[in-house]
Amino acid sequence: MLATVIYGERDVRIEEVSDPILTAGTNSGGDAIVRVVAACVCGSDLWSYRGVAEVAEPKRIGHEFIGIVEAVGSDVSKIKVGDFVIAPFYVCDMTCANCLNGVSTSCLHGGWWGADDRNGDFADGAQGERVRVPHADGTLVATPGQPDPSLIPSLLTLADVMGTGHHAAVSAGVTTGSTVVVVGDGAVGLCGILAAKRLGASRIVAMSRHSDRQAIALQFGATDIVEERGDAGVERIKEMFDGIGADCVLECVGTEESMDQAIRSTRPGGTVGYVGVPNGGPVLPIRDLFGSNVGVNGGVAPVRNYIEELLPEVLSGAINPGLVFDLELPLAEVAEAYAAMDERRATKVLLRP
Amino acid sequence: MLATVIYGERDVRIEEVSDPILTAGTNSGGDAIVRVVAACVCGSDLWSYRGVAEVAEPKRIGHEFIGIVEAVGSDVSKIKVGDFVIAPFYVCDMTCANCLNGVSTSCLHGGWWGADDRNGDFADGAQGERVRVPHADGTLVATPGQPDPSLIPSLLTLADVMGTGHHAAVSAGVTTGSTVVVVGDGAVGLCGILAAKRLGASRIVAMSRHSDRQAIALQFGATDIVEERGDAGVERIKEMFDGIGADCVLECVGTEESMDQAIRSTRPGGTVGYVGVPNGGPVLPIRDLFGSNVGVNGGVAPVRNYIEELLPEVLSGAINPGLVFDLELPLAEVAEAYAAMDERRATKVLLRP
Repeated sequence: MLATVIYGERDVRIEEVSDPILTAGTNSGGDAIVRVVAACVCGSDLWSYRGVAEVAEPKRIGHEFIGIVEAVGSDVSKIKVGDFVIAPFYVCDMTCANCLNGVSTSCLHGGWWGADDRNGDFADGAQGERVRVPHADGTLVATPGQPDPSLIPSLLTLADVMGTGHHAAVSAGVTTGSTVVVVGDGAVGLCGILAAKRLGASRIVAMSRHSDRQAIALQFGATDIVEERGDAGVERIKEMFDGIGADCVLECVGTEESMDQAIRSTRPGGTVGYVGVPNGGPVLPIRDLFGSNVGVNGGVAPVRNYIEELLPEVLSGAINPGLVFDLELPLAEVAEAYAAMDERRATKVLLRP
Repeated sequence: MLATVIYGERDVRIEEVSDPILTAGTNSGGDAIVRVVAACVCGSDLWSYRGVAEVAEPKRIGHEFIGIVEAVGSDVSKIKVGDFVIAPFYVCDMTCANCLNGVSTSCLHGGWWGADDRNGDFADGAQGERVRVPHADGTLVATPGQPDPSLIPSLLTLADVMGTGHHAAVSAGVTTGSTVVVVGDGAVGLCGILAAKRLGASRIVAMSRHSDRQAIALQFGATDIVEERGDAGVERIKEMFDGIGADCVLECVGTEESMDQAIRSTRPGGTVGYVGVPNGGPVLPIRDLFGSNVGVNGGVAPVRNYIEELLPEVLSGAINPGLVFDLELPLAEVAEAYAAMDERRATKVLLRP
């Protein structure tokens, strides 16, 4: 089959690799083989692509996909051949203490696409034609019947960006009447706006300088756009909210600058919900946080735990997070997909094998 | 009148100072003069006493007191002469946006005992015979009638340590059924145990090596004592809680070691509630926090906002946080009070003018 392999900085290739098979490892009976219907490129894939995160040796890449089940192991009971399934950006069993606590990204038996799972078995990357899915009954969620093709982009966002934006909002404590600022206008930030809206935020400020992204932000529920950054951005936010800042700030980037922007835009006693992968380790100014009682919550989003809540709204059309995709390419053109995102010609690219 | 002045490392003196008067400053009409009935020494006072925090010039000290109102300014309407009052460890108006948000420590017009208030007027320290109280209607809470003398210690804890322990528990998200670990067995840590108990925690681990403090911890509701620290302490906590750690961890010390202990004792998706004044700025390991979704909430405790909730339980005897005082001295012996706490001969010392 064809799958994407990253070789190093700005070197992503589509290659012929072995077809996945149901493994004979410890949890072999729990595997499924899924034929990928749609995958995509994540902002976090760009860390390797740009050489910020080192690529020691060529490796499979991609962690967001939806598809159709082609085979299941003997221990799989919930997921059936033929099911249309959503896979979160990681593997989880949904039965361990962490999964039951709602934190399936910390699954005691989980793993990551394109890396060894905790049994030492290799797991495929998602940017390919097929993927072996360990712990299929936990990892995968089947839709009721085959979804309308128009829903493919929105269903795909449940694999990562919509669930991650939702996690930012939940972590920031967004509830009915909250005032919200969203730092970052990538796919996750935009989904954070949509999540804040459905959680009942009364006012949502999108910090964005790109008119195309501003348009989606407004469509998703943003009430205000702020283009300023740094001190000027903080000043604008404080002016808008009683001189003190917003209740909840969603940090959806992962740089030191964006975390600083988020913390300083939060009112005393408010909360930063952060989901941007910390790149270079932003510094948390503990004495400022202590003095202002600004909380910092969040992390790698347990999107699997959110699929049941969000899926019905995607299926009914109540939310349409798939709007974050502004380019669609065949899988064979994956290198162009990376380049388009790297050069900011696209916000998020959907790939079809 | 007599009041306490700190001159430098291990040099605390009781001195004759000017009697406070209702000021003629901007908010003069809002002042009250309170005769101190009881004050005490705080763990955070020891940072100056030990020379960890520099004392640039002699200054008044102490920030916890209860007393009787002797005079009020023309704008004071709620507080009356003769009222028995509790003062939080800071000044606040309880009308600004931050106070109304429950974060009175960030009052836009507040200030600190022993320092200039935001009008530039000097505010007395609490370890003295009398204190001028700015924003008296906001800062002070009067008890219904004169309290029984036996309640003095517990009422005094509402000025700081009980409210601060409560803030740690609230910040950590303690609720019915939570599993809780408390790092720090000083007065605040012990009050954190009591707070966690009344908020419905199912299990409360006190990390303590001192038998006298362990006894109070058990009396306040601790279900388990752990004497180990560092890696061994983390290991013990994980063993006790499904191998993953506790839901809520209260950090009540403020050192790098204690924060590390707290973070590593928290389960994925759990929360550290911290109230220990960060001494030297503990490092928050953002990548570990991100990976495990451990949140960090808390800060300088807005105890004024908690007095209405906690006071009825103190008055009824439902809670008895005053047990944290294990030494009582006349104000004239304030130097001995500091020495006893510094040398760990006492957990917390109550002073009577």
